[in-house]
Amino acid sequence: MASESNPKSDAVDQERRALLQGAAATALSAAMTGLTPLAAWPMEASTGASLPAGDMDAVRAEITKRHDEALQRLQDWIKQPSIAAENRGMNEGCELMMNMLKDAGFSGVTKMPTDGQPGVFATLDAGAPRTLGIYYMYDVKQVDPSEWSSPPFEGAVVEKPGLGKVLVGRGAVNQKGPEASFLAALHALRGAGKKLPLNFVFVAEGEEEIGSPHFPQVVHKPEVLAAMKKCDAVFMPYASQGLTGDVSMYLGAKGVVELELISSGEKWGRGPKHDVHSSTKAELDSPAWHLVEALATLVTPDGNDPAIPGYTDKVRPLSDADKKLIADAAKRLNESDAKKQLGVEHWVHDVSWEEALTLLASRPTINIEGLVGGYTGPGGKTILPGRAVAKMDLRLVPDMTAEGALAALKAHLASKGFGDIEVHMSGGYDPTSTPADARIIQRSAEVYRKNGIDPVVLPRLAGSWPGYVFTGEPLRLPAGHFGLGHGNGAHAPNEYYLIESANPAVKGMDGAVESYVEFLYAMA
Amino acid sequence: MASESNPKSDAVDQERRALLQGAAATALSAAMTGLTPLAAWPMEASTGASLPAGDMDAVRAEITKRHDEALQRLQDWIKQPSIAAENRGMNEGCELMMNMLKDAGFSGVTKMPTDGQPGVFATLDAGAPRTLGIYYMYDVKQVDPSEWSSPPFEGAVVEKPGLGKVLVGRGAVNQKGPEASFLAALHALRGAGKKLPLNFVFVAEGEEEIGSPHFPQVVHKPEVLAAMKKCDAVFMPYASQGLTGDVSMYLGAKGVVELELISSGEKWGRGPKHDVHSSTKAELDSPAWHLVEALATLVTPDGNDPAIPGYTDKVRPLSDADKKLIADAAKRLNESDAKKQLGVEHWVHDVSWEEALTLLASRPTINIEGLVGGYTGPGGKTILPGRAVAKMDLRLVPDMTAEGALAALKAHLASKGFGDIEVHMSGGYDPTSTPADARIIQRSAEVYRKNGIDPVVLPRLAGSWPGYVFTGEPLRLPAGHFGLGHGNGAHAPNEYYLIESANPAVKGMDGAVESYVEFLYAMA
Repeated sequence: MASESNPKSDAVDQERRALLQGAAATALSAAMTGLTPLAAWPMEASTGASLPAGDMDAVRAEITKRHDEALQRLQDWIKQPSIAAENRGMNEGCELMMNMLKDAGFSGVTKMPTDGQPGVFATLDAGAPRTLGIYYMYDVKQVDPSEWSSPPFEGAVVEKPGLGKVLVGRGAVNQKGPEASFLAALHALRGAGKKLPLNFVFVAEGEEEIGSPHFPQVVHKPEVLAAMKKCDAVFMPYASQGLTGDVSMYLGAKGVVELELISSGEKWGRGPKHDVHSSTKAELDSPAWHLVEALATLVTPDGNDPAIPGYTDKVRPLSDADKKLIADAAKRLNESDAKKQLGVEHWVHDVSWEEALTLLASRPTINIEGLVGGYTGPGGKTILPGRAVAKMDLRLVPDMTAEGALAALKAHLASKGFGDIEVHMSGGYDPTSTPADARIIQRSAEVYRKNGIDPVVLPRLAGSWPGYVFTGEPLRLPAGHFGLGHGNGAHAPNEYYLIESANPAVKGMDGAVESYVEFLYAMA
Repeated sequence: MASESNPKSDAVDQERRALLQGAAATALSAAMTGLTPLAAWPMEASTGASLPAGDMDAVRAEITKRHDEALQRLQDWIKQPSIAAENRGMNEGCELMMNMLKDAGFSGVTKMPTDGQPGVFATLDAGAPRTLGIYYMYDVKQVDPSEWSSPPFEGAVVEKPGLGKVLVGRGAVNQKGPEASFLAALHALRGAGKKLPLNFVFVAEGEEEIGSPHFPQVVHKPEVLAAMKKCDAVFMPYASQGLTGDVSMYLGAKGVVELELISSGEKWGRGPKHDVHSSTKAELDSPAWHLVEALATLVTPDGNDPAIPGYTDKVRPLSDADKKLIADAAKRLNESDAKKQLGVEHWVHDVSWEEALTLLASRPTINIEGLVGGYTGPGGKTILPGRAVAKMDLRLVPDMTAEGALAALKAHLASKGFGDIEVHMSGGYDPTSTPADARIIQRSAEVYRKNGIDPVVLPRLAGSWPGYVFTGEPLRLPAGHFGLGHGNGAHAPNEYYLIESANPAVKGMDGAVESYVEFLYAMA
């Protein structure tokens, strides 16, 4: 959605997916003490299958043997850009992924047309008792190649001091690296002669980076819904480890609405319809001032809290269990590291660390992503602009809905005399939640712990992903992310995925592949 | 000051200088009825010299003879870009103009260093009883050549339907065309063997397009001040005629302050110092919201009127004579044409035409030229920006000062809790006024009338020019613009100056040259 050619934005090392890799959930991915047990989190006794030690050794040997093949698969994928925001390489990227699915043993791999870029539907019947849903994205964010130290679509493997060997490329961690690692796990199991412990239902979209506007059209196709209903849960592979190997897990994510507020003389019927000389401000209304005045009504005078009537009416307060998770997290996560990573000195309202984490999990927001109106070049230009735009995002918590938030915003603008301001929603969706006792959450944590990692668990990611498609009506399935491994730079230059780790606590690609094998057996 | 590469701004066909050519004083340059005599305006009986008819014929013949030479001079000038905003060709442009001055008979042509681009000082002693000050600028606005139908620095002469032959080029009308025409008048007088009727003191700057920040350093040099004090008035050549040949005259101009308001986490000490993921809005302050809240305090809630305490304290009300000028102008200027030219349906507060003209002349303004913060590309990007900027201009009327307006703004921001917001003034200056009965005003009107044009006279231009350097302390000289001729597109693509007119009521270059000869004799 975002152009990397905007220098202001290039510093941003994060976004939806990135949040889950610890880059953007900066406040949450800070160094963990690793000392406090996760007492708040009721642990179901494990009933999952697990591969006998000897068999795991055989699979591990196969993973090692197939390392170059798995890396090559990822590099081939990186070399095919698919950028929905630029409508670039979308069909090629879709078909490349479809071929990879076939290679990995999926059947009925089908391109699913939508009103936007196509999705993909596939299944893999292993004759297993349980079925797992899998969510992939095949699109990546835009790039400005001039900002990259290695070309963004080559997938070069380079030494990164302190980390080890990393693959650099757009999509390396968001999301092709983890996705390719998961496919490598399937190849390794087959190569080692093991039967898959789960059946799979696979769905993918090519518009995750533009707000997943058409993904429901894929999932809501009757044959897909029918297949998805057999699933216990839906999972997305991701590289969960921070720089020290730490992992944070989230029981859901905020919903989001991305929109533009557009004030124009054209729609207003007042002020100029195009830019005119600024001296005319004396006799003309100003669409730019009109926008500023409208914006000022949306939040409290300190700019912090939503002030749209009805906007937060449906907010479901955090449960005591949620509060306990946050209290525990506040003890384990390092506040000063979090502030340092964000480059801030104060939380909003100067709240405590625990309250800051509480706000992240529970507070609906109204944020200005960007302001653009009139003359935006160097210095000044004496114009009265005919148009000004605020780019906004709203973050929503249960039981708010994207539709409800948008309606509240529009009704408020109309009631305040700003009904002429266009509200152009470009993407977004409802919040998503999965219960703490869902098997996918329990089993994920189990695998992390088996690997010596005690994950911090938080009730909700402050960012967003389209999990509502699975957790909401009609499917109501648990959904979560899982995966060892590490990467960073989603949406930023020099995005990378760790291939060979210099730190045993942080997994490289083979370790990530192994974690998927463990996860599948844990879920089986 | 403005980059022409910003498509939003390219539609703007106007600016300070342009205002004086009728493009931006759109409301004022609308078709005139030409019927109402200028009764409000006390006319001094002419005492100026004038050239006997036979002598004028000789000069006219010389102008015709030297047409190609004059056109070539202008084309040579156009071919030398001097863009202060880009520090491009400044020294070359300065020296080219200095050579032109020498060719036209000026002596002691001196480059005047400043803290910015150099100015120029020159004199011409004709042994005449009276001395006239002349103000030139040698800089031009930026260009985006891709938007031009003829290259902006070639000076091609092309047919413009309905108008005649025009020279297209950056600076054509703003200000090289009129300036070159005035030089051509001096060449024609000399060629015809006529003694100049006036002595000249010439001052010029190369930074008019960036707000004339160092021009006082030129004029306030002791030798320049001493020379200027001998002048009766200061004049700038310009192409005053609108498309129908109409002329509006102004007895002054508003002052201006151009500035940026910069809200940043860096200076605020709250919120992020760079762009971070927008999900962190829940726990962080937002410099963009901080800017919006600060802006909203600057004006009344409808966005129209200044609300900064003390800002308008020194406003001197319009005099009865001023009001009479406006009432007469309201009858002669066509309101619906003015609205059509601006592309508007309503004046601010739905005032009448006369009141709109009154506001233009008398109302101080606080205008947003541009808003730029965070992500400004297509679609959205989920960031919380670390910085947001409003580009503003303030228009000032007597007896406000640029310094006073800036101080009031800063004091207000500090008092409202926005003291961290940087106020970066990039240029500007005080209002300028010249009495209606000043000889330069009287004589200018006389020449217009001799050419069959009854000029509309207004108390003040809503735009700005640095006339305060002459009309303010210590010189306190009358100052004005004069010239027949027509052009348009200052600061826009395809700027032009009319060379050969298809309409006898609108003068081409030779007619403009002739008007300067008439003006000099009228002033003598």
